[in-house]
Amino acid sequence: MISVLLLNGPNLNLLGKREPEVYGHETLQDVVKRLEKVMEEWDGDLEHCQSNHEGDLIDAIHRAKGVHQGIIINPGAFTHYSYALRDAIAAVELPTIEVHISNVHARESFRHHSVIAPVVIGQIVGLGIDGYEWALRSLVNKIKK
Amino acid sequence: MISVLLLNGPNLNLLGKREPEVYGHETLQDVVKRLEKVMEEWDGDLEHCQSNHEGDLIDAIHRAKGVHQGIIINPGAFTHYSYALRDAIAAVELPTIEVHISNVHARESFRHHSVIAPVVIGQIVGLGIDGYEWALRSLVNKIKK
Amino acid sequence: MISVLLLNGPNLNLLGKREPEVYGHETLQDVVKRLEKVMEEWDGDLEHCQSNHEGDLIDAIHRAKGVHQGIIINPGAFTHYSYALRDAIAAVELPTIEVHISNVHARESFRHHSVIAPVVIGQIVGLGIDGYEWALRSLVNKIKK
Amino acid sequence: MISVLLLNGPNLNLLGKREPEVYGHETLQDVVKRLEKVMEEWDGDLEHCQSNHEGDLIDAIHRAKGVHQGIIINPGAFTHYSYALRDAIAAVELPTIEVHISNVHARESFRHHSVIAPVVIGQIVGLGIDGYEWALRSLVNKIKK
Amino acid sequence: MISVLLLNGPNLNLLGKREPEVYGHETLQDVVKRLEKVMEEWDGDLEHCQSNHEGDLIDAIHRAKGVHQGIIINPGAFTHYSYALRDAIAAVELPTIEVHISNVHARESFRHHSVIAPVVIGQIVGLGIDGYEWALRSLVNKIKK
Amino acid sequence: MISVLLLNGPNLNLLGKREPEVYGHETLQDVVKRLEKVMEEWDGDLEHCQSNHEGDLIDAIHRAKGVHQGIIINPGAFTHYSYALRDAIAAVELPTIEVHISNVHARESFRHHSVIAPVVIGQIVGLGIDGYEWALRSLVNKIKK
Amino acid sequence: MISVLLLNGPNLNLLGKREPEVYGHETLQDVVKRLEKVMEEWDGDLEHCQSNHEGDLIDAIHRAKGVHQGIIINPGAFTHYSYALRDAIAAVELPTIEVHISNVHARESFRHHSVIAPVVIGQIVGLGIDGYEWALRSLVNKIKK
Amino acid sequence: MISVLLLNGPNLNLLGKREPEVYGHETLQDVVKRLEKVMEEWDGDLEHCQSNHEGDLIDAIHRAKGVHQGIIINPGAFTHYSYALRDAIAAVELPTIEVHISNVHARESFRHHSVIAPVVIGQIVGLGIDGYEWALRSLVNKIKK
Amino acid sequence: MISVLLLNGPNLNLLGKREPEVYGHETLQDVVKRLEKVMEEWDGDLEHCQSNHEGDLIDAIHRAKGVHQGIIINPGAFTHYSYALRDAIAAVELPTIEVHISNVHARESFRHHSVIAPVVIGQIVGLGIDGYEWALRSLVNKIKK
Amino acid sequence: MISVLLLNGPNLNLLGKREPEVYGHETLQDVVKRLEKVMEEWDGDLEHCQSNHEGDLIDAIHRAKGVHQGIIINPGAFTHYSYALRDAIAAVELPTIEVHISNVHARESFRHHSVIAPVVIGQIVGLGIDGYEWALRSLVNKIKK
Amino acid sequence: MISVLLLNGPNLNLLGKREPEVYGHETLQDVVKRLEKVMEEWDGDLEHCQSNHEGDLIDAIHRAKGVHQGIIINPGAFTHYSYALRDAIAAVELPTIEVHISNVHARESFRHHSVIAPVVIGQIVGLGIDGYEWALRSLVNKIKK
Amino acid sequence: MISVLLLNGPNLNLLGKREPEVYGHETLQDVVKRLEKVMEEWDGDLEHCQSNHEGDLIDAIHRAKGVHQGIIINPGAFTHYSYALRDAIAAVELPTIEVHISNVHARESFRHHSVIAPVVIGQIVGLGIDGYEWALRSLVNKIKK
Repeated sequence: MISVLLLNGPNLNLLGKREPEVYGHETLQDVVKRLEKVMEEWDGDLEHCQSNHEGDLIDAIHRAKGVHQGIIINPGAFTHYSYALRDAIAAVELPTIEVHISNVHARESFRHHSVIAPVVIGQIVGLGIDGYEWALRSLVNKIKK
Repeated sequence: MISVLLLNGPNLNLLGKREPEVYGHETLQDVVKRLEKVMEEWDGDLEHCQSNHEGDLIDAIHRAKGVHQGIIINPGAFTHYSYALRDAIAAVELPTIEVHISNVHARESFRHHSVIAPVVIGQIVGLGIDGYEWALRSLVNKIKK
Repeated sequence: MISVLLLNGPNLNLLGKREPEVYGHETLQDVVKRLEKVMEEWDGDLEHCQSNHEGDLIDAIHRAKGVHQGIIINPGAFTHYSYALRDAIAAVELPTIEVHISNVHARESFRHHSVIAPVVIGQIVGLGIDGYEWALRSLVNKIKK
Repeated sequence: MISVLLLNGPNLNLLGKREPEVYGHETLQDVVKRLEKVMEEWDGDLEHCQSNHEGDLIDAIHRAKGVHQGIIINPGAFTHYSYALRDAIAAVELPTIEVHISNVHARESFRHHSVIAPVVIGQIVGLGIDGYEWALRSLVNKIKK
Repeated sequence: MISVLLLNGPNLNLLGKREPEVYGHETLQDVVKRLEKVMEEWDGDLEHCQSNHEGDLIDAIHRAKGVHQGIIINPGAFTHYSYALRDAIAAVELPTIEVHISNVHARESFRHHSVIAPVVIGQIVGLGIDGYEWALRSLVNKIKK
Repeated sequence: MISVLLLNGPNLNLLGKREPEVYGHETLQDVVKRLEKVMEEWDGDLEHCQSNHEGDLIDAIHRAKGVHQGIIINPGAFTHYSYALRDAIAAVELPTIEVHISNVHARESFRHHSVIAPVVIGQIVGLGIDGYEWALRSLVNKIKK
Repeated sequence: MISVLLLNGPNLNLLGKREPEVYGHETLQDVVKRLEKVMEEWDGDLEHCQSNHEGDLIDAIHRAKGVHQGIIINPGAFTHYSYALRDAIAAVELPTIEVHISNVHARESFRHHSVIAPVVIGQIVGLGIDGYEWALRSLVNKIKK
Repeated sequence: MISVLLLNGPNLNLLGKREPEVYGHETLQDVVKRLEKVMEEWDGDLEHCQSNHEGDLIDAIHRAKGVHQGIIINPGAFTHYSYALRDAIAAVELPTIEVHISNVHARESFRHHSVIAPVVIGQIVGLGIDGYEWALRSLVNKIKK
Repeated sequence: MISVLLLNGPNLNLLGKREPEVYGHETLQDVVKRLEKVMEEWDGDLEHCQSNHEGDLIDAIHRAKGVHQGIIINPGAFTHYSYALRDAIAAVELPTIEVHISNVHARESFRHHSVIAPVVIGQIVGLGIDGYEWALRSLVNKIKK
Repeated sequence: MISVLLLNGPNLNLLGKREPEVYGHETLQDVVKRLEKVMEEWDGDLEHCQSNHEGDLIDAIHRAKGVHQGIIINPGAFTHYSYALRDAIAAVELPTIEVHISNVHARESFRHHSVIAPVVIGQIVGLGIDGYEWALRSLVNKIKK
Repeated sequence: MISVLLLNGPNLNLLGKREPEVYGHETLQDVVKRLEKVMEEWDGDLEHCQSNHEGDLIDAIHRAKGVHQGIIINPGAFTHYSYALRDAIAAVELPTIEVHISNVHARESFRHHSVIAPVVIGQIVGLGIDGYEWALRSLVNKIKK
Repeated sequence: MISVLLLNGPNLNLLGKREPEVYGHETLQDVVKRLEKVMEEWDGDLEHCQSNHEGDLIDAIHRAKGVHQGIIINPGAFTHYSYALRDAIAAVELPTIEVHISNVHARESFRHHSVIAPVVIGQIVGLGIDGYEWALRSLVNKIKK
């Protein structure tokens, strides 16, 4: 059975409540539901974890090894400085896709650089909640190959 | 009827023939067929244009105004320096999504920066041929709103 | 009733014990007492939270929404890299003032840049324990307007 | 008889139609008419060439040698990276004036640098359609000396 | 008797008249009155000097030696380049506090760096007219120690 | 009646006497006469002020408010560092055009950057004494709109 | 009795399991055993703490004050950005030695810079598990002086 | 039979006519004749293509695959920014040598960097027309191995 | 008769009173006396001007033309940013020598760069009051040639 | 028999005599004696070479090939710029360990970067004379594997 | 009689023995023989000097003045930092050509910059041993002109 | 008896023969004679050493300890990169003055930075042969204090 870990980083618990003109009105629960529905197409499993603590996300990535076959991660602001998160992803050697809801390249310059991107398969930026679904579909394609 | 312009920049005519370990074995024709099939879901129309000439791509973007409702573009190496292409996209004010087949963030450092990204809706990187499909699906979602 | 959240970041629990020639002899308890006394002028409330964990500070900021009307934060070394903290402050949209006890501009160059400063109302630097009081007074002025 | 080449680079064919709050409502045809009228004061000749193709502009500059006595160029976005255009201008050794309709120094930082400027006589920035006229008048003054 | 010099740099004479959405509606006279009132608490003296001339401010700082026991300075735009002003402050060895009315860290990047900050005791940024009062109170605390 | 302030910064009093191969043989008096003649077309008024003192130029800009409807400024070397001058121009909110006699982009690299340019309408560079006339004509066009 | 704190940062719990071609086959347990054996030479004590949470490491450093006489730390990826960790080490004023198993200078450029190094006694890089032993022996030498 | 493609980029059509003190008096025709004569030594074939259009050069490189066994390219000013040209050379995997007639390292700093150089075998700079001949001889040596 | 202008910039009026461990105990009067005595060797004349006003120094340089045959200048902190002063020196074309009392290269990094140095004959740094004498002697040597 | 080359670069002949507060009181002879004693544990051989001449160190490295099985090097100030030394170490392909007596990361910024580090096995910094012993022990461990 | 000096810098004595996959199998003796044979075509003379000592190379360049008519130099790693070597070449004013065996532009970034290149006629990079021959032939052409 | 070491770095043996328009016509012998004559005023002694070898200069500095009381050094191009020379000067703790014959600040940008300057007393630049005399006079003044 295909099993995927969905990770959401700091402040993403506020999704749908915070700056809706930037992030839209859907909540993180909506995202999880949408992805669970997609997983049903393959009778697959989705574990979700959101945390504002870098260490929690790293712990979750470590536990994923041997449990899940891939990771979808929206690292929030950790994208821009958490080399520890990057090392965790590289260490477990699970295919990982990075998602950003807003177009980070059209915002402040510090958001243009991702320290995570070099160790993931790919990255989806600015496509809103859709981005999570495409990431999941590509990840499952990758896992099933 | 929904109509979308698919633009591919320099060297993408070699897709499937050039460095397959980087870009995979599918050709540009395969990409077009796949997207046309997706467009059939909405009885939509897809125009495709590939060119190694920056000016041709700009001309095509200008012509899109009033003909298509959105653009999917893989600008190839123009991504990194063609401010003229960027201005063309900004000028026609059509929703545009940028696609890169390989993970540019895991390659040479000049590939990490896109001059196009700030004027598009979003960007898909490293998901291979899938990226074009997700871009199209998000673009149609956007157009139909 | 006016209610304010006082946040102190990493290593500030050592205040008064660590490098007194830089940070003075007053402890964090002294700071809290002084601010509580100031709050009495308006019959206001002060919640204090110190943590060496970035995630704890972010969680506290999230909880402040709807409970407090403003935040005073000394982010300690997180000042210089915690974009996650910055995003938390921006997300809850509570007026926030940043305080530094020592003159960071007269110390190592990495201390000259604050990633927090662009999302707060203002910043007080180098005025020792006084800085907290001025921050509180300005914050209450702002809230009462 | 005085003869001048007027060159307009990428996206300037959209003048008057694109982002009028930035570029105004006059079209490129209006510019040409205005300059032709100015040229009548000296019974002079004006050739106009607009292209989105860098190579076309270079070809036009080459052909100008021996035909025109000076060049007015609005290189559009080529301003910021076309060293080939710069070399063409330097090679033909015709007096050249660079025009920008909007104030590039008040826009994105990549627009602050012109690779063309060191090889022209002068530059007019931000004065709208007027800039073309002043450029022409200065160029004719220069040629007639 | 405690005596303090209040210095205001270029364009601060326009306070209350210029860009009120950035600087508020109070004038420099209001600031001086407010500080004079604060000084009355200690029967202290306040001298005020505003100038758009860098040299005038330096002369005033030199004269302060032996006359005043401390300085409050809002260097205006000199903040970002006047090393001469910095040297004057360092030379007279009077405790000095730097005040900025608006949050310079949320404005253009050139405003993020102060060449004055390394030679003052502390800095207050973004707290409007309040900042002057807090600066004065901290300065008097310092002088009376 | 249209009234314009003409400001010339440091060393421009030497115009026509200093480095004529760079700046030409016409003096500042010639410039003023030429502009006065142009102003006669509209029965307008021109006030001229040259100073080697940054503060004098700022004072003049402040006085212009309510007296003149626009400013033409050649800030000389202040162009490259006088943020105080920039702030003065921004503060009085009068339309302003920046003029440089020589082509600063073909000279030392420190001359390529203007701190004034982002707050003016436009800039004329390298067109010699002509530049002042074009600036005046564009300014009057602007004022009369 | 000599007592030393051994701290290992993020992802070091995976030692021996993760990328063995980079980090070797020995686990963190092997490291601890080896150091404990070395400590027996002086009848000394070793406390070990590994965490993926920056805050846990800071807390451990604070607790070390008065309990241990020195610290050996492999900060993992925190090496490159955790100024909070740096401040904690500087604050407790215990002699500290930094260890890296692999040669960070032969890897990605972000790994070449340590924000921790300026506040420790010394650093051992690239000597594998040996590095911990040498660090311990130097630390004990230092403590016994 | 050995067949080689000779490519010359923008403005090289002016060779011998433009700035002879920099580029010498020989024309591009002289270069072609000289190389054809060299090719006769091996009964080899030389195709020549000069264009001011980046796209034309890319098209020519694509066509070379399967037709020629190697490429000699003087990319002119494209050397400094045409990543599209670079990608074309890398894609066709034909041995390529880069030639510059003048010593680019003794000219403007933008000419010191070649984006083409990392994907060619080698580079000859500053040896005038000779450089083409040495490039051809080395290329043939390489092909015949 | 040889006549030389001695210029001292901001804060040099405090010489001998300010930071004597950096600048020594001799005052500016001592410097002038010493130089006047040296001038007596050639029956020469020395004019001295110290000002904290950039504009005054520029005015003095302008007046020197035709009156003095050379200039000795200690620009104080203007060294690091006064391009206006630099232009004044270049404009009057009088041989000029730059003097710094302390070793600016052993102080803060902003003091390592002089914008004046490229337009003077030479520079003496760190030799205290001696530096003025050597400057004068070299200047007279130069003038008498 | 194990044989190791010990290389010490410029100014290390002054060890124990120069700046003892930085480098301690032990001389280079003390270092050699200590290492020889360590080598006795394996009946190994140690050759020592100190030189202030970059070329001598390179020559010594070349001679080491086939004579020694490893190198310990303290390159002194050559650490920061001698790419020739780096190439020599890379060329002979002998395992090499770099030692610095003081903590270079707590000193001037030019000392933070080693051009040697990327081609050695590892680096020991700031552990005084101990560093040489640990380097030797690790090197022998490596050689004996 | 034509006489040329061939200079080879540090580590080039190892040519053919060191990293043959980078530098090939031919030794420096092979290079010298090949060049001597070429010199026979003109009955010319070749002096060869290889040294790992920067000073030896400078001495050799000084001696060349009046003895040789040109220099071929492969400065090895001195290419990247030896301004002393550069000054020597500029001082003797003999035509000089720089040769690099491997393509330095496809290697580490520090190898992309040559401090020698601005003072030589030209540079050959990446053409292996051939590069020396082409350099010699161009040099003789130059000398014979 | 006062004894001073005069050191001249690479290429200074060519003084008077090399680029006389930059360095003048006097030779190094003329410099030595002039300084010896100055030393006679105090019955002092001057040792002179010129070398193109960095190591020779370092050795000479080491030998100076206990023999000479001060050093005058013109480090030639070593000025810009020889940290080894810098360390030698710092290590022997003899007062040292740095001399440059030409105005290095008016030449190539790499000549604007001296790695030697922070460890010497002072620096004389651009005063030709005079500079040596002033350096000697200041050095003797310093020694005699």
